[in-house]
Amino acid sequence: MAQLRIALAQTNPVVGDFTGNADKLVEWTRRAAERDAHLVVFPELFLTGYPAEDLVLRSSFVEASRSALTAVAARLAAEGLGGLPVVVGYLDRTDGDRTDGDRADGGGKPLNAAAVLHGGEAVMRSAKHHLPNYGVFDEHRYFARGNRLPIFRLHGVDVAIAICEDLWQEGGPVSVVAEAGAGLLVVPNGSPYETDKDDVRLELCARRAREAGCALAYVNMVGGQDELIFDGDSLIVDARGELVARARRFEEELLVTDLDLPALPELPALPALPEGAAEPGDPRMGPRDDSEITVERLVLSAAPVEPYRPEPPLIAERLDDLAEIYQALVLGLRDYVAKNGFRSVILGLSGGIDSALTATIAADAIGPSRIHVVLMPSRYSSDHSLADAEELVRRQGLNARVIPIADIVTAFEKEIDLSGLAAENLQARVRGMLLMSLSNEHGHLVLTTGNKSELAVGYSTLYGDSAGGYAPIKDVLKSLVWKLAEWRNAQPGDPPIPENSITKEPSAELRPDQRDTDSLPAYDVLDPLLRDYVERDMGRDELVAAGHDPELVARILRLVDLAEYKRRQYPPGPKITSKNFGRDRRLPITNRWRESR
Amino acid sequence: MAQLRIALAQTNPVVGDFTGNADKLVEWTRRAAERDAHLVVFPELFLTGYPAEDLVLRSSFVEASRSALTAVAARLAAEGLGGLPVVVGYLDRTDGDRTDGDRADGGGKPLNAAAVLHGGEAVMRSAKHHLPNYGVFDEHRYFARGNRLPIFRLHGVDVAIAICEDLWQEGGPVSVVAEAGAGLLVVPNGSPYETDKDDVRLELCARRAREAGCALAYVNMVGGQDELIFDGDSLIVDARGELVARARRFEEELLVTDLDLPALPELPALPALPEGAAEPGDPRMGPRDDSEITVERLVLSAAPVEPYRPEPPLIAERLDDLAEIYQALVLGLRDYVAKNGFRSVILGLSGGIDSALTATIAADAIGPSRIHVVLMPSRYSSDHSLADAEELVRRQGLNARVIPIADIVTAFEKEIDLSGLAAENLQARVRGMLLMSLSNEHGHLVLTTGNKSELAVGYSTLYGDSAGGYAPIKDVLKSLVWKLAEWRNAQPGDPPIPENSITKEPSAELRPDQRDTDSLPAYDVLDPLLRDYVERDMGRDELVAAGHDPELVARILRLVDLAEYKRRQYPPGPKITSKNFGRDRRLPITNRWRESR
Repeated sequence: MAQLRIALAQTNPVVGDFTGNADKLVEWTRRAAERDAHLVVFPELFLTGYPAEDLVLRSSFVEASRSALTAVAARLAAEGLGGLPVVVGYLDRTDGDRTDGDRADGGGKPLNAAAVLHGGEAVMRSAKHHLPNYGVFDEHRYFARGNRLPIFRLHGVDVAIAICEDLWQEGGPVSVVAEAGAGLLVVPNGSPYETDKDDVRLELCARRAREAGCALAYVNMVGGQDELIFDGDSLIVDARGELVARARRFEEELLVTDLDLPALPELPALPALPEGAAEPGDPRMGPRDDSEITVERLVLSAAPVEPYRPEPPLIAERLDDLAEIYQALVLGLRDYVAKNGFRSVILGLSGGIDSALTATIAADAIGPSRIHVVLMPSRYSSDHSLADAEELVRRQGLNARVIPIADIVTAFEKEIDLSGLAAENLQARVRGMLLMSLSNEHGHLVLTTGNKSELAVGYSTLYGDSAGGYAPIKDVLKSLVWKLAEWRNAQPGDPPIPENSITKEPSAELRPDQRDTDSLPAYDVLDPLLRDYVERDMGRDELVAAGHDPELVARILRLVDLAEYKRRQYPPGPKITSKNFGRDRRLPITNRWRESR
Repeated sequence: MAQLRIALAQTNPVVGDFTGNADKLVEWTRRAAERDAHLVVFPELFLTGYPAEDLVLRSSFVEASRSALTAVAARLAAEGLGGLPVVVGYLDRTDGDRTDGDRADGGGKPLNAAAVLHGGEAVMRSAKHHLPNYGVFDEHRYFARGNRLPIFRLHGVDVAIAICEDLWQEGGPVSVVAEAGAGLLVVPNGSPYETDKDDVRLELCARRAREAGCALAYVNMVGGQDELIFDGDSLIVDARGELVARARRFEEELLVTDLDLPALPELPALPALPEGAAEPGDPRMGPRDDSEITVERLVLSAAPVEPYRPEPPLIAERLDDLAEIYQALVLGLRDYVAKNGFRSVILGLSGGIDSALTATIAADAIGPSRIHVVLMPSRYSSDHSLADAEELVRRQGLNARVIPIADIVTAFEKEIDLSGLAAENLQARVRGMLLMSLSNEHGHLVLTTGNKSELAVGYSTLYGDSAGGYAPIKDVLKSLVWKLAEWRNAQPGDPPIPENSITKEPSAELRPDQRDTDSLPAYDVLDPLLRDYVERDMGRDELVAAGHDPELVARILRLVDLAEYKRRQYPPGPKITSKNFGRDRRLPITNRWRESR
C-alpha cells in the first residue's frame, strides 16, 4: 500500500471570471500545499464557472479558457507550486471541425474537459464522455464527447479521472477503470442541489467505487449560479464503498484526507516508463455501451511517499431536511446578489409569511443592514399587516420605510375605470413600480416574495408582485414556507419572524376581507397536488388514481396550464426541487394541450 | 414511367390541439381526394403541432398522440378516404425503456415519427434519424433516434420517407435511398423561417434529389408558434434537382402536382410480394455515418395508374426580402393572437416609428377594428408626437384613446424622490401599467413596440415599454424598422404610416429634448455592429478586425452583455434572424465574461 494525502477543493467559481477563478485555484492550491497534500482536485469546469450556457459556443470564450489553463499552470510553477499536481475542470475544444452531426460553425467543438497541471504545464487532458441532456442540462448542445480514460501515476498510485455524469451513467470511462487498474478515481463535479440528492450521491459513489475496485474522490462545486445551487457535499469512499470523508455542504471547504491505496506492486504490471512520459493508450471497449474508450497513462512519480502519520478524516455532520433547504436558499440569494454586483436588496413587506420569510433569508444571507423593506399599505390592508411587518423590522433591524399607495391608485383610477381583477392587479403593480423605482434610484436588487404554490396557479400579478430581479422562494411550496419559518424561529437566538405572520390566514389583501381560500383550496390539499403534477409530471388520470379529487385536479391543472405565460416573466430563483419553473421545465406558451381537459 | 398526383398539405397546426389538427387532416385529405390526388403529405409532427417542447416528455401527451393517429386513420376510412394514402408527422415512442444514455423515467422514449395512413390504419411508422440540437432545436432532449428508411409502393412507384433534419445532414436514411431505390422521396418538415433560408432550401433539396436519384417532395409547416414562424415554401424537385413546383409562403396551401416517376420495371428487381404485405428489411450501412439504417418495404398498390392528362404545376412567385419579412411578422402576430385565444390587441402609440410600424403590422394581421391604441402624452412629449399618432389612427381607422400620464407621475413623485434614469423609467412604467390594466379589464393582448436594436443595448424600461405579451418587432433592427415602414407605405393603397413618423429623429421623450443619439451611436453604425456581435457571435477582436471602431465595440458590447437580465424579462416575438433574443441564445445572467473587457 501507498499513502496519499488528497485535497478536494470544494470551491465556488464565478461564470466567466477567468481571472478570479484562476486566483482562487492558486490560492487553494497553496493552502493544500501548506497542508502537505500530494494532489488537489477542483470541480468540473471550474476555470469557466458552470454552467456557462451559450458562452461555450463563442470561440473567444473557448480560447480564453484554454489560455487561462496554460497561464494558471505556469503561474503555479512560478509561485513554487508546480510540484503539486492539480486536477481541474476547464473548457477545451476538439482540434478538427465541428462535424459530429450538427450543422454548427467551423472551428473545434467545445469539450467539457479536465486537465492535470504539473510542473508548469497541463500534462494530461481529457473530456467528459457522458453528456447529460435532460432537466437543467443541455450538454449535447454544447460539447463533443470525450473518449479517454486518463490515468496518472502519483507516488506509486495510479489515479484515474472521470467527470461528473460519467459517474451517473453506465458504460464510458468509469466502466473500464477496473480493467485498466487504478488505486484512486477522482471525479470533478458540477452537480446541482436537489432535496434528498445527497443520499443518492453517496450510494452512487459507493457502487462505482466497488465496480472500479478502487477508492473514489468526488469533488463538487459549491455556490449559486442563476437558479442552480451547488451544494458541495464532496466525499471520499474506499474501494469497498465505505465512506471515508465528507465535506460540509453549502460552503467552500478544502477537504484534506489521508488515504492508504494499493501501490504499484499490487497492480497489474505496466511497461517501464521514464518518469513524466506518456504512454500511447490501448483502445478498450466499455463493457456496457458501444463506445470505445482509450486508456491514457502518464507517470508523474513512481515511488510511494515515505510513511507518515495520517490525520483523522473529516466526516461532516448531516443536515436535517429543513436546515438543508434553508441553507440552500440562503446560499442561492447570497451568490445571486454578490456575483451580479449588487450590494443591497429591497422588497415589499406585507406582514404575511412569504415576505417575512424572504426578508429573513435575505438578512441571513447578506446581513440586515443591506436589507431595505418597504411597507406599502393600501385601503384594504388590515391593521395587523402593518403591525406584523413593523415587528419583523424591529426584530431583525432592517432598513424600513412606509409608502401608502392609496393616492397613487386614486390617480390611476381618475384616468381609467377598472373593476375586479384589473383593480386588484393595479394595487400590486403600484407596489411593484415603487420598488423598481427605488431600485433604479438606489441600486438595490428587488426581491420578489411569491412562493411556488402561487406561481404554479398564477395567483400573482404580472409586473406587480412578480416584478423584481430574484425570487428567493420561487421553488418553495406554501406549506414548506410555513415549515421553514417555524424551523428558523426554532434556531438558537431570538425568533426573527413574528408568530402572527406564521399563524394568520393568508390573504393578498387586494379587496376587502379577501382570503387565499376564496380562490384556492387549502394549501395542504393544493401542495401535494402541485407536487405530483409539476414535479412528478403525473397526468390527469394518474393524479386521480393517486387519490386527488377529480374536480380539483381538473380545476388546478387548468390554472397551472394557463399560468405559463406569467411564469415565463417571473424572475429566476433558487431551484430546490426536481422541477422549478425554470429551465428544467420548458413549455410552449402557445399550446392547447390541457391535462385538465 | 408511372404518373402520380401528389398533394403537399402545407398546413398550420396548433400545438396540443389534437382534435383541431385531426379535423384539419381529414378536411385537407378530402380536398386532396376531390382533386384526385394519389398521395397526401402533411408536415412534421403535424398531429401534435411543433415544437411541443417539454409536453413531449409527458407520457399522457405521447399516448394522446398515438391515440389521435389511430383514431384519425380510422376516421379517414369511415369518411371514405381510406384509399388515399396519407403521410403525416406525429409523436410516437419506443417500446422499451428510456435507456439510451439519459437518466430519464421509465416508459418508451419519444420519437419524432411519421406514419403512412391507409385503409383505416397506420400501415407504416418510422422516426427521424438526425435530431437537431442547436439553435432553437433541443431534439436530443426529447427524442430517441429512428433507424429505418420506410419505402412504400404506390401505383407502381416506390415512395421513401425521411423527416426534416434527415435531409440537412449527411448519412442516415436519405443516404441509403439511392441504394435502396425509390422513385420519390417525401419529406415532412417543421422548418422555421429565417431571412434568406428559402434559397438554401431549394439548393439542398436539389442536391439530395440528385444524390438519391429520385424526385423529392418537401412539405413544410406554415404558421407562428411562439417565437418561431414556419413559412411553408413547400416544393418539389425532380431527380435532376430541377424545380417542378413551389407553394406560396406564409399561408396554407394544398400544392397538387403531377409527377412522372420511374415505375417498377425500371427499378431494381424486388421479390414478389402479396399486395399490402410488409417485407422484413435488410440492414444497410449509411455510407457517410456509422449508423445502421434498416430499409422497410410495403406494397400498397403495384400497378401504375391509367395515363391521364397532367395539370400544369404551380411555381409561386418569389417575394422580395422586405415583403418576405413583413409577411413573416404579420403571420407571427396573427397566429400568436389567434392561437392564444385573444380577440384584440392594445398598444401605446407614441408618434414614433416603432409603435407606428407595430400598429400597422397588427392591423394587417387581424384588422384595424381589433386594434386598440392608447396615446399617453407626458410633460416631455412634443406636439408632433400626439399629432403623428393621431394621423396614423385616422389613416388606419384604429380604436384610440388619449390618457395623459402627468397626474399619475405626480402622484408617484409625491411619495418618492426620483432622479435621472429612475425618473425616466417611471414614465415608461406608468404607461406600461395603464396598458396592462386595460388589458386585464378588456382582455386585449398587450403588444410591446421595442425593436431589436433597443432590446440589444438595453435601451428600454423593464416593466415599462417592455411590459406586454408579444413583441412584434423584437427581432427587427431599427434600420430595418424604417425600411419596412417605407416598403409598407409603397404598397398599393394609401400609405398607412405618416411620413413624419418615418423621417423624424428618434427620441424616447422621457426628458426634455432627449434624442436616441444622446445615448447611442447612429443606427447605421450601431446596427451592423449588433448584427456581427449578436447574430454572427463575433468576438471583440474579430469585430475590430471587421472594421468596427474599437472604442465603440467596447462600449456597445458592454451594453449588450449587461442588458441580459432585462432581455430575459422581455416578451416573445417573431424570430426572423439567426439570433433572436430568445431560445436560440441562452446566456447565464450571473456571468462576468465581457467581450468588451
